[in-house]
Amino acid sequence: MLILLSFLMTLPVNLLMFGETPDWLAFVTSSAICFTSGLVALVMVGRKKHVLRQRQMFMLTVSAWIVIPLFSSLPLLLSDLRLTVTDAFFESISGVTTTGSTIFTGLDRMPSDILLWRSIMQWMGGIGIIGMAVAILPFLRIGGMKLFATESSEWSEKVVPRTNSLARSLVGIYLGLTAGCTLAYWLLGMNFFEALNHAMTTVSTGGYSTSDSSMGQFDSNAILLTSSMFMALGSMPFFLFVRFIHGQRQPLLKDQQVRFFLVMLVAIALMLMVYRVVNNNADAFDAFVHALFNVTSVVTTTGYASTDYSLWGPFAVVIFLFITFVGGCSGSTAGGMKIFRFQLSMLLLREQVRRLLHPHAVFARNYNGRVIGDDIVASSVAFSFIFLATLAFVTAILGALGLDLITSLSGAATALTNVGPGLGDIIGPAGNFETLPDAAKWVLMATMILGRLELVSVLVMLSPDFWRS
Amino acid sequence: MLILLSFLMTLPVNLLMFGETPDWLAFVTSSAICFTSGLVALVMVGRKKHVLRQRQMFMLTVSAWIVIPLFSSLPLLLSDLRLTVTDAFFESISGVTTTGSTIFTGLDRMPSDILLWRSIMQWMGGIGIIGMAVAILPFLRIGGMKLFATESSEWSEKVVPRTNSLARSLVGIYLGLTAGCTLAYWLLGMNFFEALNHAMTTVSTGGYSTSDSSMGQFDSNAILLTSSMFMALGSMPFFLFVRFIHGQRQPLLKDQQVRFFLVMLVAIALMLMVYRVVNNNADAFDAFVHALFNVTSVVTTTGYASTDYSLWGPFAVVIFLFITFVGGCSGSTAGGMKIFRFQLSMLLLREQVRRLLHPHAVFARNYNGRVIGDDIVASSVAFSFIFLATLAFVTAILGALGLDLITSLSGAATALTNVGPGLGDIIGPAGNFETLPDAAKWVLMATMILGRLELVSVLVMLSPDFWRS
Repeated sequence: MLILLSFLMTLPVNLLMFGETPDWLAFVTSSAICFTSGLVALVMVGRKKHVLRQRQMFMLTVSAWIVIPLFSSLPLLLSDLRLTVTDAFFESISGVTTTGSTIFTGLDRMPSDILLWRSIMQWMGGIGIIGMAVAILPFLRIGGMKLFATESSEWSEKVVPRTNSLARSLVGIYLGLTAGCTLAYWLLGMNFFEALNHAMTTVSTGGYSTSDSSMGQFDSNAILLTSSMFMALGSMPFFLFVRFIHGQRQPLLKDQQVRFFLVMLVAIALMLMVYRVVNNNADAFDAFVHALFNVTSVVTTTGYASTDYSLWGPFAVVIFLFITFVGGCSGSTAGGMKIFRFQLSMLLLREQVRRLLHPHAVFARNYNGRVIGDDIVASSVAFSFIFLATLAFVTAILGALGLDLITSLSGAATALTNVGPGLGDIIGPAGNFETLPDAAKWVLMATMILGRLELVSVLVMLSPDFWRS
Repeated sequence: MLILLSFLMTLPVNLLMFGETPDWLAFVTSSAICFTSGLVALVMVGRKKHVLRQRQMFMLTVSAWIVIPLFSSLPLLLSDLRLTVTDAFFESISGVTTTGSTIFTGLDRMPSDILLWRSIMQWMGGIGIIGMAVAILPFLRIGGMKLFATESSEWSEKVVPRTNSLARSLVGIYLGLTAGCTLAYWLLGMNFFEALNHAMTTVSTGGYSTSDSSMGQFDSNAILLTSSMFMALGSMPFFLFVRFIHGQRQPLLKDQQVRFFLVMLVAIALMLMVYRVVNNNADAFDAFVHALFNVTSVVTTTGYASTDYSLWGPFAVVIFLFITFVGGCSGSTAGGMKIFRFQLSMLLLREQVRRLLHPHAVFARNYNGRVIGDDIVASSVAFSFIFLATLAFVTAILGALGLDLITSLSGAATALTNVGPGLGDIIGPAGNFETLPDAAKWVLMATMILGRLELVSVLVMLSPDFWRS
């Protein structure tokens, strides 16, 4: 992984060969450090094959999400930006976890190579998340993901015979989406550099931009709509795309999670549109586009903003707080609690109501045409509980560090779900994270990694049982 | 019930026979209206016995919590206070549901009979909730309460042979606690009127006071500690008290719910004490007493305040927001999500972690020495989900009505859990609900009743299945 990272680190210099690369030395040095570390590790392990047992897979997953961001911060630290160690780590962890909270102001005057590196970190994080979600988490049975374990292991036998082939398909789709998004942005008026950067942070649902005014800089409804579409695509289950390009169209079009996700985005956008037309006397179409874009940005955990939506009124603030929790579909680049967990809860609730009315009837739970066992429900519920408990815990720590209620609560939520912006004057869509105390930044960094690891895997490692025997 | 209510309505006049009762006519008229309505209903139904089926028990429970508060508002409406209908309903619904949010300022100059009536509404609501929690909810299998159905039905056969006897024991204990609390308050320096009023609103975990400064008016740590104790007693499962007075001491002392509840109160109070000693340079003992009192007040869903705790700093504000959700033990006068639901979630989480590490092992869930089936977990989870969904929904409506995020969120939470005060400048511990728009008041009234009915029973009535056949 470190050797791969060292090659990615040369990209900003290579891609900008004919442009300005004031920090080329920082990138080359960082790349060399990464390469050497990777080589040393490789030599130490030797060439013999290791079969990873479950515990080692836990270890590997958790440590990868700590080691990669730390090494990724090297170019930022070695550059001329004179960042503190805390700020450099914050930016790279926020980047690799595709959170997108930033400590930078003045992005518009930032050197191109640094901007590009920020986008590459998110893009790299995005493919890492898909890999983890599709290949590792289901087999670890974390947070109800077993639901998808069956699904992906089943179809892969039928359609794509080997794991290598699955990995290749996933990378291909990710590259295809990025290329398509770059092209679309370019055709709609961005210059190529902007198009490439934003495409990388759109498809990975990361949210870093090349300007302090984020997507608002282009002032184009067409770009906002296109961006909404690609953010939504980045938040859909990627294995359904693999099936789709192998000719199985039904599973994607009829997937309950995807349908609910899309309907929800449009419904919330319409609601906000009505609110703004009534309260702010806004133009209906314009209000719809901006509502759809910003809602999609938050639900997909991207974190772009087209405008300071917290000025739309208290109803909008409340809505944006709540949709911070939702997250995209499982098996995508998105974070958050994930749509299917809400759907399972609703299923459970409907079942309860029926059971109260017909105490002796027998009910079968169905989701996407599958019967849902009690074990899947239990692990999904356990996830929701640890998610909310962690949220409360992090909010309390931030409060103890002196942040006000809205900043603490929305900061904890936005980090845990890997969204990006919070609410309130400090970390809201128009603010940034630079002014927070260092201790708060470290807490948020840990929270971003926790969120990215779907929490339970960390909890497993904290249990004494894990280290026994 | 209405006839019983008509007698309770004469109490303020009877108890204050030798004092001032400027609104005696209002009480007598209200009592007459209640009595007549009750009599008419009784004649219409006739004297033949009706066996209530499950659906009718739902109906009865839900309508009782709407009808009783409406009739209880009559003395307020007919008095010289010149309340609007909205405000009168708000005060009586908040009273009977033992929420304790008030629209009154100037309680210190309020006529004694009105103050007494407010306390009586809460006291009456308190016993109604215990009756509902012990006698009705468990048999309707709502929100995991089946856990206690088994328990109470089992012991009642062994220890107390008949339901009548159980009801008598419960009322006896409630009266005993009220008398004990009155006496304690009186001995510690309150006058008898204050002692009686506060005892009634302490044991019922209601929270109405005779002063705008609530329990702060007495400036006595002894009163705060005594009050904390009686609030905690009012939040414990009452059937354990029945067993206790029948000689079974173990169940109360070893109850997992009670133990967790008490440990949690002290732990949070200690945490806040440390925070205040470090940040506000407060006296340690004084800080502990005030922290314990206000934490107990919120967790038990009483809603007294000894001081404006929102000024203790952002950490305190965050903590008070979160403990608003917790609630007391089941089978008590307290509202909220209830301790046992958190304990079940933690049980589930621990089980999940173990299952990840030992995929083939078999685990038995135990709570209070009983095995917990998947059905109980499912109904408890369904409750938590509908609780949080309702919270989000109500918060959004309040936001749409123009209230800021903190007022909307804490207002929705405090109404749904029947706590009383919210957070922020408007409805915080130093504020009150008078200045809210009427629409917001009606939303909060509906939310208080929903919270009191444990939500699911209302949901059952909203389902089309309920009305079929």
